[in-house]
Amino acid sequence: MATGDIGLIGLAVMNLILNMNDKGFTVVAYNRTTSKVDAFLANEAKGTKIQGAHSISELISKLKKPRKIILLVKAGSAVDDFIAQLIEGGLEKGDIVIDGGNSHFPDSIRRTQELEAKGFLFVGSGVSGGEEGARYGPSLMPGGSTAAWPAIKPIFQKTAAQAYGEPCCDWVGETGSGHYVKMVHNAFRALGIEYGDMQLIAEAYDILKRGLGLSEDEIADIFLKWNKGVLDSFLIDITANILKFKDDDGEPVVTKILDKAGQKGTGKWTAIAALDAGTAVTLIGEAVFARCLSAIKDERVRASKAIDGPKKEVFRGDKQLFIDDLEQALYASKIISYTQGFMLMRETAKEVGWNLNYAGIASMWRGGCIIKSVFLSDITAAYVKNPKLESLLFDDFFNKAIRTAQPGWRRVIAQAVLWGIPTPAFSTALAFFDGYRSEIVPANLLQAQRDYFGAHTFRVLPGKENSKFKTGEDIHVNWTGRGGNVSASTYNT
Amino acid sequence: MATGDIGLIGLAVMNLILNMNDKGFTVVAYNRTTSKVDAFLANEAKGTKIQGAHSISELISKLKKPRKIILLVKAGSAVDDFIAQLIEGGLEKGDIVIDGGNSHFPDSIRRTQELEAKGFLFVGSGVSGGEEGARYGPSLMPGGSTAAWPAIKPIFQKTAAQAYGEPCCDWVGETGSGHYVKMVHNAFRALGIEYGDMQLIAEAYDILKRGLGLSEDEIADIFLKWNKGVLDSFLIDITANILKFKDDDGEPVVTKILDKAGQKGTGKWTAIAALDAGTAVTLIGEAVFARCLSAIKDERVRASKAIDGPKKEVFRGDKQLFIDDLEQALYASKIISYTQGFMLMRETAKEVGWNLNYAGIASMWRGGCIIKSVFLSDITAAYVKNPKLESLLFDDFFNKAIRTAQPGWRRVIAQAVLWGIPTPAFSTALAFFDGYRSEIVPANLLQAQRDYFGAHTFRVLPGKENSKFKTGEDIHVNWTGRGGNVSASTYNT
Repeated sequence: MATGDIGLIGLAVMNLILNMNDKGFTVVAYNRTTSKVDAFLANEAKGTKIQGAHSISELISKLKKPRKIILLVKAGSAVDDFIAQLIEGGLEKGDIVIDGGNSHFPDSIRRTQELEAKGFLFVGSGVSGGEEGARYGPSLMPGGSTAAWPAIKPIFQKTAAQAYGEPCCDWVGETGSGHYVKMVHNAFRALGIEYGDMQLIAEAYDILKRGLGLSEDEIADIFLKWNKGVLDSFLIDITANILKFKDDDGEPVVTKILDKAGQKGTGKWTAIAALDAGTAVTLIGEAVFARCLSAIKDERVRASKAIDGPKKEVFRGDKQLFIDDLEQALYASKIISYTQGFMLMRETAKEVGWNLNYAGIASMWRGGCIIKSVFLSDITAAYVKNPKLESLLFDDFFNKAIRTAQPGWRRVIAQAVLWGIPTPAFSTALAFFDGYRSEIVPANLLQAQRDYFGAHTFRVLPGKENSKFKTGEDIHVNWTGRGGNVSASTYNT
Repeated sequence: MATGDIGLIGLAVMNLILNMNDKGFTVVAYNRTTSKVDAFLANEAKGTKIQGAHSISELISKLKKPRKIILLVKAGSAVDDFIAQLIEGGLEKGDIVIDGGNSHFPDSIRRTQELEAKGFLFVGSGVSGGEEGARYGPSLMPGGSTAAWPAIKPIFQKTAAQAYGEPCCDWVGETGSGHYVKMVHNAFRALGIEYGDMQLIAEAYDILKRGLGLSEDEIADIFLKWNKGVLDSFLIDITANILKFKDDDGEPVVTKILDKAGQKGTGKWTAIAALDAGTAVTLIGEAVFARCLSAIKDERVRASKAIDGPKKEVFRGDKQLFIDDLEQALYASKIISYTQGFMLMRETAKEVGWNLNYAGIASMWRGGCIIKSVFLSDITAAYVKNPKLESLLFDDFFNKAIRTAQPGWRRVIAQAVLWGIPTPAFSTALAFFDGYRSEIVPANLLQAQRDYFGAHTFRVLPGKENSKFKTGEDIHVNWTGRGGNVSASTYNT
């Protein structure tokens, strides 16, 4: 008789299996390389209720109906392959296939439709929290076939992290909204932690190391201190731990790590989504490009020998004041990063016609998930106070915070620029801030140029209307005295 | 009896028709709104050999075989619609449909296949040079059905600009390479002129206006002077003309233009291509995002009232020295922009297995097209000297140029940062430069963080190998003393 509560395909995240076992569920584990199943049962899973399966049909036969099977495999064709194998292996109507991987949301939409058409149920679930989260409580965001929720709810809500007495997991909603919020979460996480925040912290580390010449231990102490202030967050905390972590010879491990950053698709997809939405999400753009630049290590090594930078100068100012400035630079840049993230959500929501619960979104992520920080509580507060808040920068708290942070933020960037230490994320955050608060940006010149060489036309600036320049009209000026009476509204050269 | 040499659909670019007529060809013009055909014949085309057509079938009947018909319509479904109308209207086997619009290259690949399957020929041609170029000589880059080239060659090469005694037009090659080079050109033009250079010039204008408080006339004089030096280019030239151009009341027209920049897809596509290729093409990213930011004018106006910037301070330094610094900042940033452009070409070519003739590419654009500049001659020289040049920054000429430009470049950005004037493109160019010439970037910390929270593993830095950290191995450290013996190589949370 089948006794398995839930099946899991893919042993890369065995921590999730151990977590579900701890919560009292009987998990059946399967892996393509079946020797890994045996090794897992003989080691990590020894003495637990966890069962192994050596084939898809064995996995199916060991599960109670309706069967619930989570795929934790690489996003892409592997997911489709396993779904096909499950159907072939004896999946029955009403059984639930859950994709807990990192799938791109259009794939999940397609899979929901395909599986529902065959009588099965499909759930695409965001799983967040990494190795630690998987073991002790991830954030789970299931969405898809609504009929699946009652069956998976006890397992999902018990497995998830608990924050403020609530599980970090709830049904996201019907197919469309579910996948949308999953994407928003990915995008936000990408912005908030895996790209924006991480890049900003890396730049701060670089400035402290190369600019001020501090050691990893000294820098760790600075991060520990920052973690007690406005920057208090999971990521600042682990950065301090990382910087303190020594190899056997006493050298910090971080200095032994190759400086080539890997990336998953999340950052790229978010940047592309931002480009599609026409939203200036510059932090993620720069963070993704910084990783691209880190990846061409060999070329950088050659360049470091071929290209001169500014002469190294000893810092003559007050170190502590500069470190305080840097804290403010990091804080201000982070405010911009999240401002951009919410702006992207706003524009995307506008496009698809959704009313997003921004306070709820910020609140849901404030515990449990790896983007947890006091910062998210402040964002929650801002949107609770005004659910229609246009921009974080219009909220009193953040408006004041960035006003206070501004002078130090500017001093840090100016100093890094003169030192020759790259600060792409700090700089783009400030450029966004200065552009955003500019009533007039020099895009009037861009429009003039585009009209000059491409007859692209322009609009008149309010207050400057006259008989030739009328509001609401596409205006073309014959700049050269040559050229015909044309506009490029239909044909773009 | 049919006497038309070539047919043209779409009257938005009537200049190209006038140009072809001047070169001795009989053009038949058709437009969906047929009243525009009549107006054109009665005005601009009066006294020429140009013929009009009021229907697709009339257009076809007036053309010599094999018929050559250029579509100059909006990219997208309009192209497919007209192709369908042409087939329905009596197109015969061997006739040539030419898309001279701004189509995305995968569409052109599809159309070549679809039309060839039906016995027709298809050419996707890049047309560059804008209104002026269309009238007096554009750069034409046809590619597609090779059998079409002998038939269109005389018309295309005579219509194109002539530079250094050669037509700015040649057959790009068989379908694949043709469309590829067309894309490269678009990408390059997007980088070189419509996004990177334009944004850099706009920032320089903003600094001179808001930072130094100069008038449009004074700024025009600076650009005129710059146009005699290393920045000599079409775009600097027209910028000076634009700044000098007055409305009837004596006010510069540019100050009456709404500061919301439009964009075509080119910049976005290039940025997406760069993200896909994993290449740090940051100038175009920032330029596209700057236009996005310009587009939310109303929000900026509200933000300008709600958010404080730094206190306005009078510039106390030597103005002329600062202007000279700014020239160097513009020049250095432009070098980075083109370095990134060639890097993107290099990476894309590597991926598709092409050997690109970089000297030829730079040379082809140096006259005729709107990206013409002495700068491109210097690039040509660099690649003639070393066809395998890894990066423009490794070429002696550019290496020395950027070394000279560097101090002023840094001073300008530091000053703009303190002023509160946004310089996203200047700043990202410098951040790229400083990152590129850094043997070590802080991506080691990123890798440590990713391994800490996601078990993503890392590699060892060369020179730091030991018994635990081995070359070529994916290393995972148990940072917390908890967590299992896992890596996220297959499953990415």
